[in-house]
Amino acid sequence: MLTVKTSSEAEDIIFSTFGHIKMDIEEVGILNSVGRILANDIVSTENVPSFNRSTVDGFAVKAQNTFGCSEAIPAILNFKGEVLMGEAPSFEIGKDECAYVPTGGEIPAGADAMVMIEYSEDYGDGTRGMLKPSAPGQHVTFIGDDVKVGQTVLHSGTKLSAHHIGALAALGYESVPVYKKPVVSVISTGDELVDVNESPKGAEVRDINSFTICSALLELGCEYRKIGIIKDDLPLLESVMTKAFEDSDMVIVSGGSSVGVKDSTFKVLDKIGEVLFHGIAIKPGKPTILGNVNGKPGFGLPGHPLAAFYVFNLFVKPLIKSIAGESVSDRDFYNKKTANLTHSIPCNHGREECMGIKLKNENGRTMAEPVYAKSGLISVLSDSDGYIRIARDCEGLSQGEEVEIQLF
Amino acid sequence: MLTVKTSSEAEDIIFSTFGHIKMDIEEVGILNSVGRILANDIVSTENVPSFNRSTVDGFAVKAQNTFGCSEAIPAILNFKGEVLMGEAPSFEIGKDECAYVPTGGEIPAGADAMVMIEYSEDYGDGTRGMLKPSAPGQHVTFIGDDVKVGQTVLHSGTKLSAHHIGALAALGYESVPVYKKPVVSVISTGDELVDVNESPKGAEVRDINSFTICSALLELGCEYRKIGIIKDDLPLLESVMTKAFEDSDMVIVSGGSSVGVKDSTFKVLDKIGEVLFHGIAIKPGKPTILGNVNGKPGFGLPGHPLAAFYVFNLFVKPLIKSIAGESVSDRDFYNKKTANLTHSIPCNHGREECMGIKLKNENGRTMAEPVYAKSGLISVLSDSDGYIRIARDCEGLSQGEEVEIQLF
Repeated sequence: MLTVKTSSEAEDIIFSTFGHIKMDIEEVGILNSVGRILANDIVSTENVPSFNRSTVDGFAVKAQNTFGCSEAIPAILNFKGEVLMGEAPSFEIGKDECAYVPTGGEIPAGADAMVMIEYSEDYGDGTRGMLKPSAPGQHVTFIGDDVKVGQTVLHSGTKLSAHHIGALAALGYESVPVYKKPVVSVISTGDELVDVNESPKGAEVRDINSFTICSALLELGCEYRKIGIIKDDLPLLESVMTKAFEDSDMVIVSGGSSVGVKDSTFKVLDKIGEVLFHGIAIKPGKPTILGNVNGKPGFGLPGHPLAAFYVFNLFVKPLIKSIAGESVSDRDFYNKKTANLTHSIPCNHGREECMGIKLKNENGRTMAEPVYAKSGLISVLSDSDGYIRIARDCEGLSQGEEVEIQLF
Repeated sequence: MLTVKTSSEAEDIIFSTFGHIKMDIEEVGILNSVGRILANDIVSTENVPSFNRSTVDGFAVKAQNTFGCSEAIPAILNFKGEVLMGEAPSFEIGKDECAYVPTGGEIPAGADAMVMIEYSEDYGDGTRGMLKPSAPGQHVTFIGDDVKVGQTVLHSGTKLSAHHIGALAALGYESVPVYKKPVVSVISTGDELVDVNESPKGAEVRDINSFTICSALLELGCEYRKIGIIKDDLPLLESVMTKAFEDSDMVIVSGGSSVGVKDSTFKVLDKIGEVLFHGIAIKPGKPTILGNVNGKPGFGLPGHPLAAFYVFNLFVKPLIKSIAGESVSDRDFYNKKTANLTHSIPCNHGREECMGIKLKNENGRTMAEPVYAKSGLISVLSDSDGYIRIARDCEGLSQGEEVEIQLF
């Protein structure tokens, strides 16, 4: 008999068994890489900028030749010539020499600073007066100031977004290696389920889990295979699940996971693979199963759509991110938000609990409103922005207390 | 001569001119609606649940018949029968009667509460003893407890995510009306630009803006038309831009927007439409142009990729969201994060400034590290998680000070 696990025990089993799995790598064009996970470090093979560049219109000088100058006592320098935009200078700057360089132009060898054109005078005799001293490096971007050869610009595991793609374009990458999208098969079991386009009769309910889970997989950057409703028929479920494990990187079955007459998911996972746990002490979501079928993870989620969605978010999503190659980073804080409770939440009784939260903006302060509902399915799904986890030893949360919301 | 606008003046002009524009509506299957913007309110045409439903295995009773009962003095009720899962009860519950109802089963008319099976006894004579009183409504989900006929479940303007799609599936929606994706043409101008696959020579630089902006448009749910690099040739730019305005809902041109010899974007917008402003007092990003061409917005962004990206985020993105139908809601707080500065930032001088920020997690506290870089293009793009806006009258920000980061 498999005992019910705490959520941290469940996480440990999930990651110790499947944490090593990584998708293969494919090369895609950078505009197709938006939202994909970078599979190698991107190391610059170039210095950026590739030349010492002026950031102003003015005169390239040896800084020391301008020290102590002023409007009263200009530094008088010989005008060596003009550097054209986009052209390499054909001369160097020697002692007491200067050259005109436009913004973005290359600073000639020998020069180490710029004097802005407004602080110069043309004496008409081949000399220019500098009216303001310039420190070494002033108004100059040196070779490699932005990025140096050998510097890691983006790390493997980064989820690529517009600004990363700008950095890739700047470095001349037309394409990048990314992890392939995990393919996940999604099955709903249960004789009570009907398709979304049917009207449920009696105790029939629509298959909601196929939609929440496939949508969530899309948002995670996976490919989903929506197998749909499989009736509670053990041989049929076994053949469908066996095929699904062959065709995909992970199989998610919802429904049929309570211990009882209808525990078909458990029976199939136990037969075609190994069941690693059956039951997590969390509310809602207790009847959760993890199976290992030929090294691939198979999840049995509760049939109740809200429970299935919470379990997906809590336990399946982190594994998918790991398999998809996404590194856990400070960016994960993106999806969390702290806010203050609008209402107290009474204690639960020895079981970790998830509760839907609606975020509200009250005078610029973010407030967290618990989304209660007696049956609380559709209303929780439609109204919540995320959820909080209430620890199993929590003795209740008070109004105004700060909570951490995991955003959907 | 058009004067430089403050950022709030620019926002006012943008929204007063184009704030009324909304995309047309199309109907898509709910799994294709992930990330799309809902175009109508979703009003329930059903009560959910559609029958009074038991949340436990046990006996449906009239609550008042159990008042005062206990293990010592059970309430003895006549057993009326069993309700099968998924079937409508064929009988009602009268005074001193009870019926077995499984979890999820329908409660017969006349009953208003459930007694859990563990608090009952079977006397074998057609009666059952109730050992614990039940209050009216206990262990029952009544018709419409979750959602009532006529209730607005999702509001027009919602960006649809997995949990919303679950709510739609639960209500039997196979498809939903969403706003069409805005089509945005993206042009880079400038003789110094080369394609991403070319090696820049001299002062040439790669076209980065086409990639950051097209990627950002993808992330926003738009369709982009990447027109690419157009050389600084006024008749050519005019014909390309004219065609782009015909083909798309918005045109974004970067580069060529400084006041100077190369202000081609300004000249074309002025000729084929009306220029509404030229210049926003923001650093980086001053040379920003807004044009109105046959009622469609045309933006001229700065050529510098970081400036262009900031201006896109600050001024173009909000307009695109508005045109795409996305409602401004408390959800927008998703993309903001408060954190404490790791370093002081010196004052700027009378101009609002954007600065790249990298988020760091220090002992569970989110810290904001300013991403300085002298030239600061690639490194800011690759390292920043978002940016802060420093007000023009700000006299500097101190280490440890709380700032609000707009995430990329």
